Amino acid sequence: MALLDDLNWRHAVKAYDATKKITEADLFKILESARLAPTSSGLQPFRVIVVENQELKEKMVQGALNPEVMRDCSHVLVFAAWDSYTPEKIDKVYDLHTDVRELPRGRFSSYTDKIKEIYGAQTPEEHFAHTARQTYIALGLAMAQAAELKIDSTPAEGFSNEAVDEILNLNELGLKSVSLLYLGYRDEANDWLSHMKKVRIPMEEFIITKK
Amino acid sequence: MALLDDLNWRHAVKAYDATKKITEADLFKILESARLAPTSSGLQPFRVIVVENQELKEKMVQGALNPEVMRDCSHVLVFAAWDSYTPEKIDKVYDLHTDVRELPRGRFSSYTDKIKEIYGAQTPEEHFAHTARQTYIALGLAMAQAAELKIDSTPAEGFSNEAVDEILNLNELGLKSVSLLYLGYRDEANDWLSHMKKVRIPMEEFIITKK
Repeated sequence: MALLDDLNWRHAVKAYDATKKITEADLFKILESARLAPTSSGLQPFRVIVVENQELKEKMVQGALNPEVMRDCSHVLVFAAWDSYTPEKIDKVYDLHTDVRELPRGRFSSYTDKIKEIYGAQTPEEHFAHTARQTYIALGLAMAQAAELKIDSTPAEGFSNEAVDEILNLNELGLKSVSLLYLGYRDEANDWLSHMKKVRIPMEEFIITKK
Repeated sequence: MALLDDLNWRHAVKAYDATKKITEADLFKILESARLAPTSSGLQPFRVIVVENQELKEKMVQGALNPEVMRDCSHVLVFAAWDSYTPEKIDKVYDLHTDVRELPRGRFSSYTDKIKEIYGAQTPEEHFAHTARQTYIALGLAMAQAAELKIDSTPAEGFSNEAVDEILNLNELGLKSVSLLYLGYRDEANDWLSHMKKVRIPMEEFIITKK
């Protein structure tokens, strides 16, 4: 099915069937779409934490806007961004680039020198503002991939970042949580959104054309 | 073709064939994927400006990292986010929601009251940090839709936001530019990235599984 059909099919499901689990093969495809997401300078400055364990989900419920969605979904993906850019992190990514492409290390050093200089002049808060933005590209693609597989998903920013960071020990990894993606299968009888039309602002209002 | 194939096919093209234009029908699909992008509370707090005019592109080149990509691509999409949330903007979106769903206006007022309260306690800078993030969901989906159509694209943050905002009069519309998406067809001979392997960090490093 085409992407537009998938995007029209999906909605942010408000109630999940707790008895239904997504398969490992489907989960892999969803994670792969996030891994393939393009990011600024190709740095992939975030990680995805996969939470299936019910006890961990129960802990993460504290401060979540939709606790029943957290509880009943099959898997929770946590999109967590780098808390900062460092020359070491940048070199590590570009060493991988040159190694995979069988080029000498340092082949892209004029470029990496430039981005190191740019990020070197910024604060960690500015870094995180930027790394956090990149996660949304992957979040969107993961939702699209789930929809292609007829798997439901619910993106969420309504949770306690501090609680999730602590429960998952993200600070130790130099990561900070940005958003969640609940995955699973809808409980159609209890998902009030299942029965409502999708609403988007009209194209003529959404688009501004400069001829 | 499946989304993963499309994501593996695409890359950030570095040289475009200036003689090739994308069709209106294909452009519409790309814009539609952005319009269907999910956003926080369904507010769609951004607009997409479509620039095809070569004179406008020449003006926007000032401060752009890849001026030749701006010049030679078929169309430039400018993702521009709301500079702030206001109760009026929120009501306008939710009036559309109730109207389309044939519900009485105000049906979602307990929810909209809550988000008005949250945003009312924040600064315009905090608002823009949030609206800007949402644009990346649409940016990602637009790239995926382009790839499905075998249209090349290049996302870009390397440009002068101030120049683009001024050239397109975005401030008057309560918008601020966030990113660009160049669209068109690659000039394979001059696109050095066309001949290189795609590099992503390995899945086992990208994913952290909490069992």
